[in-house]
Amino acid sequence: MIVTPWEVSGHVDYEKLIMEFGTSHITKGLLERIEKAAGETHFMLDRKVFFSHRDLDWLLDKYEKGEEFVLYTGRGPSGDTHLGHLLPWVFTKWLQDKFDVELYFQITDDEKFVVKENMELSETTRLGYDNALDVIALGFDPDKTFIFVDTDYIKSLYKIALRVAKHTTFSTAKAVFGLDNSTNIGMSFWPAVQAAPCFLPSVLKYRNVPVLIPAAIDQDPYWRITRDVAPKLGYYKPAAIHSTFLPGLQGPESKMSSSKPETTIFTTDTPEDVKKKITRAFSGGGATIKEHKEKGGNPDIDVACQYLYQMFEPDSNKIKELFDGYRSGAVSTGDVKALLIKKVTDFLTEHQKKREQAKKKLDKFILKD
Amino acid sequence: MIVTPWEVSGHVDYEKLIMEFGTSHITKGLLERIEKAAGETHFMLDRKVFFSHRDLDWLLDKYEKGEEFVLYTGRGPSGDTHLGHLLPWVFTKWLQDKFDVELYFQITDDEKFVVKENMELSETTRLGYDNALDVIALGFDPDKTFIFVDTDYIKSLYKIALRVAKHTTFSTAKAVFGLDNSTNIGMSFWPAVQAAPCFLPSVLKYRNVPVLIPAAIDQDPYWRITRDVAPKLGYYKPAAIHSTFLPGLQGPESKMSSSKPETTIFTTDTPEDVKKKITRAFSGGGATIKEHKEKGGNPDIDVACQYLYQMFEPDSNKIKELFDGYRSGAVSTGDVKALLIKKVTDFLTEHQKKREQAKKKLDKFILKD
Repeated sequence: MIVTPWEVSGHVDYEKLIMEFGTSHITKGLLERIEKAAGETHFMLDRKVFFSHRDLDWLLDKYEKGEEFVLYTGRGPSGDTHLGHLLPWVFTKWLQDKFDVELYFQITDDEKFVVKENMELSETTRLGYDNALDVIALGFDPDKTFIFVDTDYIKSLYKIALRVAKHTTFSTAKAVFGLDNSTNIGMSFWPAVQAAPCFLPSVLKYRNVPVLIPAAIDQDPYWRITRDVAPKLGYYKPAAIHSTFLPGLQGPESKMSSSKPETTIFTTDTPEDVKKKITRAFSGGGATIKEHKEKGGNPDIDVACQYLYQMFEPDSNKIKELFDGYRSGAVSTGDVKALLIKKVTDFLTEHQKKREQAKKKLDKFILKD
Repeated sequence: MIVTPWEVSGHVDYEKLIMEFGTSHITKGLLERIEKAAGETHFMLDRKVFFSHRDLDWLLDKYEKGEEFVLYTGRGPSGDTHLGHLLPWVFTKWLQDKFDVELYFQITDDEKFVVKENMELSETTRLGYDNALDVIALGFDPDKTFIFVDTDYIKSLYKIALRVAKHTTFSTAKAVFGLDNSTNIGMSFWPAVQAAPCFLPSVLKYRNVPVLIPAAIDQDPYWRITRDVAPKLGYYKPAAIHSTFLPGLQGPESKMSSSKPETTIFTTDTPEDVKKKITRAFSGGGATIKEHKEKGGNPDIDVACQYLYQMFEPDSNKIKELFDGYRSGAVSTGDVKALLIKKVTDFLTEHQKKREQAKKKLDKFILKD
């Protein structure tokens, strides 16, 4: 298992990650507090798609005392947006709606440029603005959502990043990210730039603002560094809530990745693409229809089952029915895939319409220096 | 002898630096070419105050073929400006006048913040704008001089710095600057930001522009990294011309340093300050007037003699007369100091007047994003 901000591979053991990263489980008590504060729960919480956190209890304390928090998440624009990216954003939108809070959304064209050997900076910037359309299409509140592409907002970020950098040694970056001496100096500075938005709301509002970061667990090393530095700068440590990864189409031991198009369904895929890709996706069913009917399948490793579970079937009763049927063999791989194809196609048809409309709304969302 | 961008101490052996850094002597032939191109020579060249270079011959080739070059130098605002800072700027102004070229002047508030443990960022920015007054006071051409304080021009610089950073490993930065794992990640990224202005003119002008950097020799490690990266980005390698250091008031084995006020004459010092400081300065003369008259003194280590030689007495006949007299004992330490006090006071009186006027001219010079 390898889980770093730049690579996720092997069978991801999320329990082990909680131990290794030193994060906390989202307990039943915490789930109840969220439900009480939000007025409802979210299936991604119930199903442990968001499964781990840092200081979420502290954040709820603050919230219950009337202290407003903000959300921070982001996107590394190394390619087109895919469903795996949307997963935490869908949850982030729910948080924004339920808690009526601001979202700061960082698009890291600078990072992707220094990390990806064959990408040019203008390309990552272009992808950044293109990816922003997918964020906007999800329906975030234009009055409370601030999206910035790093190279166009660096004047604001840089001053904060310098403060973080001054308190972060190369040893720390090395230990936390596994950098070595052959790492380029853009990558070694980068953790400071990803930390900057944690303190940006405090800088912009002239007061200490609690921040909650909903993001996949691979981003946690950044928050570890940021949390160490925060008290030295006089800011709150950012709280975080971590999601699992949406598996790639080829099976559970992969993560959807825009740099591996064969693993992904992009937000701009046509209904034909979707049908073709899901039809070919890794199945947890029996080798033949006969075998499946007799022995059943395994929904926990079946990609279509997992996409429904993690993202596309909010109704938990329906999920139970479906998984039970799949396990027994009454529900076939074809049935599950057909259901997913319909759900994803409906979702993307609507998403693509909103994505088109988002082209006229960019100015309302984008922060620029 | 330690000579790095952050520390200069011990007896500086400039011949050894040429060997160690791998730079070139300014030969007689090169001096003649400069004189021919400029229409006259400059005493700092004749006296080897500017003593070393990289690719100056290449730059003159370009110039002779009608290709315009630009100048780039800068200032790290860790304190008030002193005479040691002005030395290369005085020569830079001469280059601008004689070759009728643009000057890009970087003020590195970001660097000084990450390097100096006890300085705040707003303090280095404030000092940066204050130091800019001294640059302007020297009479640079307002139509051809572009001064920028990094944190206020970072949006333009960052995109170039990222390109440099992508091609510079931590190993390289380590080897060239003696960084180690305890170095903060702001310092490890920094060489990319100091390199950026070497390519800025090319970016701004949409063509490859030759750059000449007049600066003290301690800055050369930056140009070594920059020159390695330049061809990978498709730009010319910057050429450089290196000066010696103006010694501190306490003697030849020190460099004027704003962080050690006792070593310096600041540009804002009063005539009384100047008189007091020069009177107390390290002398190469005899221990007593009697001894000096008998055995003479050593102008090569005498601080007042050196200030006249390096900066304040352009007339080389007068310098010869003075030094001969000092060596023979006919000219006393008091005589030399009195002459220097007069020269420095006259210079600073005029400089301070222009510095005051510069406060109204900042907008004409400052580049901001």
